[in-house]
Amino acid sequence: MAKEQQFVAQIADIETDFPQWYTDVVLKTKLVDYGPVKGTMVIRPYGYAIWENIQKEFDKRFKDNGYENAYFPLLIPMSFMTKEAEHVEGFAPEVAVVTHAGGEKLQEPLCVRPTSETIIGTMYGKWVESWRDLPVRMNQWANVMRWEKTTRPFLRTSEFLWQEGHSVFATAEEAEEETQKLLAVYAEFAKTCLSMPVLTGKKTEKEKFAGAVATYGMEAMMHDGKSLQSGTSHYLGQNFSKAFDIKFTDKDGVQKYGYTMSFGVSTRLIGALIMTHGDMRGLVLPPVVAPVQAVIVPIAAKKAGVLEVCRDLCDRLKKAGVRAVLDDSENSPGWKFNEWEMKGVPVRIELGPRDLEAGKMLCARRDNFEKTELALDNAEEGVRALLGEIAVNLYNKAEERMNSRIVSAETLEELLAGVDGGNFVRAGWCGCRACEDKVKAFAQATSRVMDKENTAKKCVSCGKPSAHTIFFARAY
Amino acid sequence: MAKEQQFVAQIADIETDFPQWYTDVVLKTKLVDYGPVKGTMVIRPYGYAIWENIQKEFDKRFKDNGYENAYFPLLIPMSFMTKEAEHVEGFAPEVAVVTHAGGEKLQEPLCVRPTSETIIGTMYGKWVESWRDLPVRMNQWANVMRWEKTTRPFLRTSEFLWQEGHSVFATAEEAEEETQKLLAVYAEFAKTCLSMPVLTGKKTEKEKFAGAVATYGMEAMMHDGKSLQSGTSHYLGQNFSKAFDIKFTDKDGVQKYGYTMSFGVSTRLIGALIMTHGDMRGLVLPPVVAPVQAVIVPIAAKKAGVLEVCRDLCDRLKKAGVRAVLDDSENSPGWKFNEWEMKGVPVRIELGPRDLEAGKMLCARRDNFEKTELALDNAEEGVRALLGEIAVNLYNKAEERMNSRIVSAETLEELLAGVDGGNFVRAGWCGCRACEDKVKAFAQATSRVMDKENTAKKCVSCGKPSAHTIFFARAY
Repeated sequence: MAKEQQFVAQIADIETDFPQWYTDVVLKTKLVDYGPVKGTMVIRPYGYAIWENIQKEFDKRFKDNGYENAYFPLLIPMSFMTKEAEHVEGFAPEVAVVTHAGGEKLQEPLCVRPTSETIIGTMYGKWVESWRDLPVRMNQWANVMRWEKTTRPFLRTSEFLWQEGHSVFATAEEAEEETQKLLAVYAEFAKTCLSMPVLTGKKTEKEKFAGAVATYGMEAMMHDGKSLQSGTSHYLGQNFSKAFDIKFTDKDGVQKYGYTMSFGVSTRLIGALIMTHGDMRGLVLPPVVAPVQAVIVPIAAKKAGVLEVCRDLCDRLKKAGVRAVLDDSENSPGWKFNEWEMKGVPVRIELGPRDLEAGKMLCARRDNFEKTELALDNAEEGVRALLGEIAVNLYNKAEERMNSRIVSAETLEELLAGVDGGNFVRAGWCGCRACEDKVKAFAQATSRVMDKENTAKKCVSCGKPSAHTIFFARAY
Repeated sequence: MAKEQQFVAQIADIETDFPQWYTDVVLKTKLVDYGPVKGTMVIRPYGYAIWENIQKEFDKRFKDNGYENAYFPLLIPMSFMTKEAEHVEGFAPEVAVVTHAGGEKLQEPLCVRPTSETIIGTMYGKWVESWRDLPVRMNQWANVMRWEKTTRPFLRTSEFLWQEGHSVFATAEEAEEETQKLLAVYAEFAKTCLSMPVLTGKKTEKEKFAGAVATYGMEAMMHDGKSLQSGTSHYLGQNFSKAFDIKFTDKDGVQKYGYTMSFGVSTRLIGALIMTHGDMRGLVLPPVVAPVQAVIVPIAAKKAGVLEVCRDLCDRLKKAGVRAVLDDSENSPGWKFNEWEMKGVPVRIELGPRDLEAGKMLCARRDNFEKTELALDNAEEGVRALLGEIAVNLYNKAEERMNSRIVSAETLEELLAGVDGGNFVRAGWCGCRACEDKVKAFAQATSRVMDKENTAKKCVSCGKPSAHTIFFARAY
């Protein structure tokens, strides 16, 4: 146990110093490292493998919803950015600008894309001619850049990886429906693949995407009770179609502007799952996206037959679609247990001479530390079932936690007490920007999303009738 | 036939105006469009789907060879580029530079990566400590930027997508062996997945990667007899490990510099396959990477049962892993034939009332226009076998063509006549830069790769003894 304690001690305590715990965990499990340029990150293989699994799951879902992948240029002429007034106001302060290339000064400075509505809008304006061309549904997997002052790996970095979907429809109704549909795809993904419960809803004007008519977001509760915006879906109305001339000749022969929407999730999701499930021992990875789902640790590995059986088991699990790894390194079993626990592997399989004799293996769950004996013969099915149980248990635990930490407030003082206690606070809001700003100033909390129904009576700030019931929280 | 001729007429003649044919084909089949910034391209869904298939096939191969994917930052401090003297000399003229970000002028200008040896080298310098950390094998799928004066979609664009693999080994032998191994992976991929024969070999000093000890390349012969460099693998020796301090403590306790290598292929491969297989009717896509492998065109689609059987067939093919599409649009069968031929779909299936009765379907091959009747019952197996035959036939045709167009030359005049005739020219070379330059000036041909053996007697330029037998060609 001495070794274990020594090992666990490498990570700051999750309860008393969560920010340091996060930094320790992402660096020590080799998910990520700091890049040489301030605010950039290197996504190391263990972190990138999570992203690959996220991509695979999303890509399937987008394609099932009629999306095709494409790739648009990284560099956007500055003049495009300014065509939609709100958009440029929102993004200009964060943009990185290429001014020189090929040894010469450029005639027009080029932005490194912070998001691609403007350049994709320009191309759609060229491609869309008739109602027959609609709807257009495309998605791109790409890097984007937003120059940030305060950065943290996965959560907020100058460059990050994401997907951005962009669609055009003939009518407002279709575009609005699509906005909701993709929000639902995000929430389902969060639940199924990240075992992460989320609140979804409309954002306020203040919090919406620059240039959108309406933004819908999903918010997840992190270990410290703060909220993390984990995905957004924007209804853009005709703002971008007018700015980029996305017009089509309708069935009635009349030229009309299309209605557009866009949606995106990023490598931020990796930060979200870490801060949703992690514990004092380190990462706890949801099985669907875990790079390693099961690690096999041989016990008394030098005893006859042990390593052979472990190897055979590893092959069998892989063939059955389980991402399994055999740790046959020279380290002691205790060291390996700690290492793989810190790395958040959902299932650890221990296999020694006695297990072989009994035709069994010991499976330790990362989510609740329970140990179960499973028959070796039936390992594939056993481990797969276990992974399924872990995914459900992680979700249930996180959901219970979130639900138990949603409180209501009728005054600013109650709201402050709520967020101080690490809660999301449900409260009424009159709808005016001044009151939203006042909440921020008083409680350092922001409006995350609107609740589906407005059940609050009064604005938490001014006391006037509530127009929307809001989930307020401190946020990353 | 009138319609068909009208349709084919949209594409320039492949024999008399190959450059225009290429432009027509890539734009009209919607593989690609020009981006708003000069020299950039938009990869449209039909083109991107080819890239996705290329990625999938390569990713499998890299992982089988021990590579893990990672992601390194886009922006590289200018000072990193200058640490390896040859490297900066080669790439500085092509670099795009970010000078401003977040509304401020940056203290140090940042390059948009033209390739990542310098930034990956920096991180490896930080991560590698002991012989136990070696070998390191990582790959990244990313966008890169090289500011080019003359650009063409897929072949040469300011921004392109690629993969770059970067490895570190303890010894020169291992790093050299890896360089050869990855070159072989490239050539095998070209054959298996693109049905594209290639010549592989070492590059001359003049043609090697800036900063490499040795570069090995694969070259493919395009329809016009010109060569396209389609992939390169570089042995970097200790050039980058010394510049970026990639040191390890060896088993003997001594600190040593590692030996590195890197390798890359890009969206250029899409240009390569288009110009290898295309014909007067447009694209001819190799089955393994074709976004649509089989298109079903209903004949007399309004007759009872026809559409139902077509739909059922399409579902069955998809389930069997064939990328099948049913074209149930309003267009005439003739129009559809032309459209899908231009788009290069390997197999067209025609299904009408008489076929239904006979339990058959008519399959038209894109590679040789042969038509075969296949049993509907056995469609999955039949179509899969046909796709396999097409892949082999495309390869054989291209290989015969390439082999028949490799000629030998003993004088500069013969060399000129050879490349004028659309051939690769095998000729002796003394090994000096002046002679290489002279060939270029005299015949507008460059050294592509060295042959495995030096069988030529004399240098084609100066007549001194041949040090290497070179494949010379005009090149893209």
